[in-house]
Amino acid sequence: MSGKLSFIILIALYLGGYCFAQTNQSALFIMENDGQWQKTDYVHRLSQFPKVHPDGRFWFQFEAPKTAQSVKLQIGGGSYDMQKDAQGLWNVVIPRPEPGFKIYSFNVDGTSFIDPGSMPFYSNGLVSMLEVPFPDKDYYQMKDVPHGDVREHWFYSKVEQKYRRSFVYTPAEYEKNPNKRYPVLYLQHGAGEDESEWTHSGHMNNILDNLIAEGKAVPMIVVMNNDFVYKPGDVPGRMALAPDWAGNFGQMLINETIPDIDAYYRTIADQQHRALAGLSLGGMLTNQVGMKNIDVFSYFGLFSGGTVSPASITDKAKVKLVFMSYGSRERAAEGTKTAADALNAAGIKAVSFISENTAHDWISWRRSFYQFAPLLFKD
Amino acid sequence: MSGKLSFIILIALYLGGYCFAQTNQSALFIMENDGQWQKTDYVHRLSQFPKVHPDGRFWFQFEAPKTAQSVKLQIGGGSYDMQKDAQGLWNVVIPRPEPGFKIYSFNVDGTSFIDPGSMPFYSNGLVSMLEVPFPDKDYYQMKDVPHGDVREHWFYSKVEQKYRRSFVYTPAEYEKNPNKRYPVLYLQHGAGEDESEWTHSGHMNNILDNLIAEGKAVPMIVVMNNDFVYKPGDVPGRMALAPDWAGNFGQMLINETIPDIDAYYRTIADQQHRALAGLSLGGMLTNQVGMKNIDVFSYFGLFSGGTVSPASITDKAKVKLVFMSYGSRERAAEGTKTAADALNAAGIKAVSFISENTAHDWISWRRSFYQFAPLLFKD
Repeated sequence: MSGKLSFIILIALYLGGYCFAQTNQSALFIMENDGQWQKTDYVHRLSQFPKVHPDGRFWFQFEAPKTAQSVKLQIGGGSYDMQKDAQGLWNVVIPRPEPGFKIYSFNVDGTSFIDPGSMPFYSNGLVSMLEVPFPDKDYYQMKDVPHGDVREHWFYSKVEQKYRRSFVYTPAEYEKNPNKRYPVLYLQHGAGEDESEWTHSGHMNNILDNLIAEGKAVPMIVVMNNDFVYKPGDVPGRMALAPDWAGNFGQMLINETIPDIDAYYRTIADQQHRALAGLSLGGMLTNQVGMKNIDVFSYFGLFSGGTVSPASITDKAKVKLVFMSYGSRERAAEGTKTAADALNAAGIKAVSFISENTAHDWISWRRSFYQFAPLLFKD
Repeated sequence: MSGKLSFIILIALYLGGYCFAQTNQSALFIMENDGQWQKTDYVHRLSQFPKVHPDGRFWFQFEAPKTAQSVKLQIGGGSYDMQKDAQGLWNVVIPRPEPGFKIYSFNVDGTSFIDPGSMPFYSNGLVSMLEVPFPDKDYYQMKDVPHGDVREHWFYSKVEQKYRRSFVYTPAEYEKNPNKRYPVLYLQHGAGEDESEWTHSGHMNNILDNLIAEGKAVPMIVVMNNDFVYKPGDVPGRMALAPDWAGNFGQMLINETIPDIDAYYRTIADQQHRALAGLSLGGMLTNQVGMKNIDVFSYFGLFSGGTVSPASITDKAKVKLVFMSYGSRERAAEGTKTAADALNAAGIKAVSFISENTAHDWISWRRSFYQFAPLLFKD
């Protein structure tokens, strides 16, 4: 790693337009150190790259093996050739990306590597990530409001026969009201992720801190569990799922997590004060486990995770809300409003939401959570 | 990644003895899939490697660029040549390592990469880690005892002019005693690490859960903050430290963290119920910031982080304990008992501890914490 504030000047020319496609871009820009390049938020303290320029460009640097012949930056479906500098490090500067959440990697002669300079996320394995904010970013920023804690909480699962970690958000006021009890949202991640991602990528805690501070959401506990539950002897299949993935999850959630949470925290331990929601695989779990447990939960949220049909609801009087959402760029988005209309026509309160200009990604899910949370526990 | 439970049979021979030195080992072992290889704890769910065999061997696999000429496993100071299999993946099986905490990487033609199959730790950047337990491992295991939560807690630092994350351990009984107040230990990490490592690598929460359950330690709150504090405009120097690293840290800790913790949690907010400790750089901070703030803390712990001299203690009546420890393989270890003797001779209670057969590593620090925590807040 050269890094430092030493500099690398690459003579370069901008050879092509910018588009986000599965084609190689010859993205050669002036990589001059004009004093305005800043470390990005994702970079750890011993690293300098990627850097961001006030004009929106990003500068990536990677140390490939000295035998490498070709190194490319792969980001958000695009690919950019990198150039080897005098120190043997590979560099590229890319133009201002479109807003969104972008996984990137460095491809060395066909094999991809994460960026050792930035802190990894878990999305179908370890990935490097950077984000270009949409203009509506305000709602998930950390602000000068009271902050809830996100707790790493351990419990023993008899289903798995081992200890499991979940994360539990408790609102800031939880500490100030030692005799008050709170409703609980159980919130699940997607297939490629783990229990850390709703806060790490989703900024769920910031969103809810802000909503509570504005009086828009009821203070609540949020429990984030891992979707993946294996019984001893289970052989993981597609996407590492157990053969009876929804059944295993349901057993763990209903028989182990909920009793543990109700014993450990000051919850309101009844059906009217419990919600279940999730994104993608977590939405499917909400559908499969939630609809079989209408005695346990009264609010349901599916973010990019399918829709609920009236026929699957056995006791509609117990359902206070079905919320369904998609990113506008997801194919399934168009059926969302129709599904909500069908539920409402059947006398079941349903709300649909489409996140504009986003796909199956964390911007869709942050926005979905921002729409969903204010609807909970108000009646 | 082939992985799966398909198999790779490499015809191989054990060519050399095993030693932990800076030499290349031709560690060729029979890499047969005899059905006994298991995923290690550090592997994420979409990965299979490294695997461990009941006989103590470890099997590593890595996908290097196809242009790679030489790939080595580097682990704990040793280096092992890897062999390319028919799928183009590089493999090596190593004999049972000596107990300890081992950072490892894959070196491709001179450049090191972390293992994308195992979850990374932060130690001077992202690293891959595996651990071979010492026989005394019982004290840091997760057991069937009440578990405290480890909370991600955010606060705004005026010194840094940004939000900072700390981790806060609250004991399990904290939730059951809404009117009880608790003493607080402020616990710092080492120079290569961050605020996550006392729980992630140190298993501080397990150790304290176990000690509290056995009645050996007083239930306490533990606050883990990041050692590194930058004022706007600070240019990081050696080891990414700010020019006035101890001064900055002291301002942040004394003026911001402690008032925030005392306001947010049910602490006993006085000098007699506050301790400061840390490992390595954290021990140096304990010495530099602690000795200047004897009105704030009464217990001090330095793990592989230097020693305290009687002359540096301005008001010995206020100091309840100085604890100093090293791993037996650290050069500075031999001065530890002498330093404690000098403090005791000066009328200041001091305890020294040497961790047998360990160096500047997490085994030394886990054991140090296990010795230190029971001494706190009992008088």
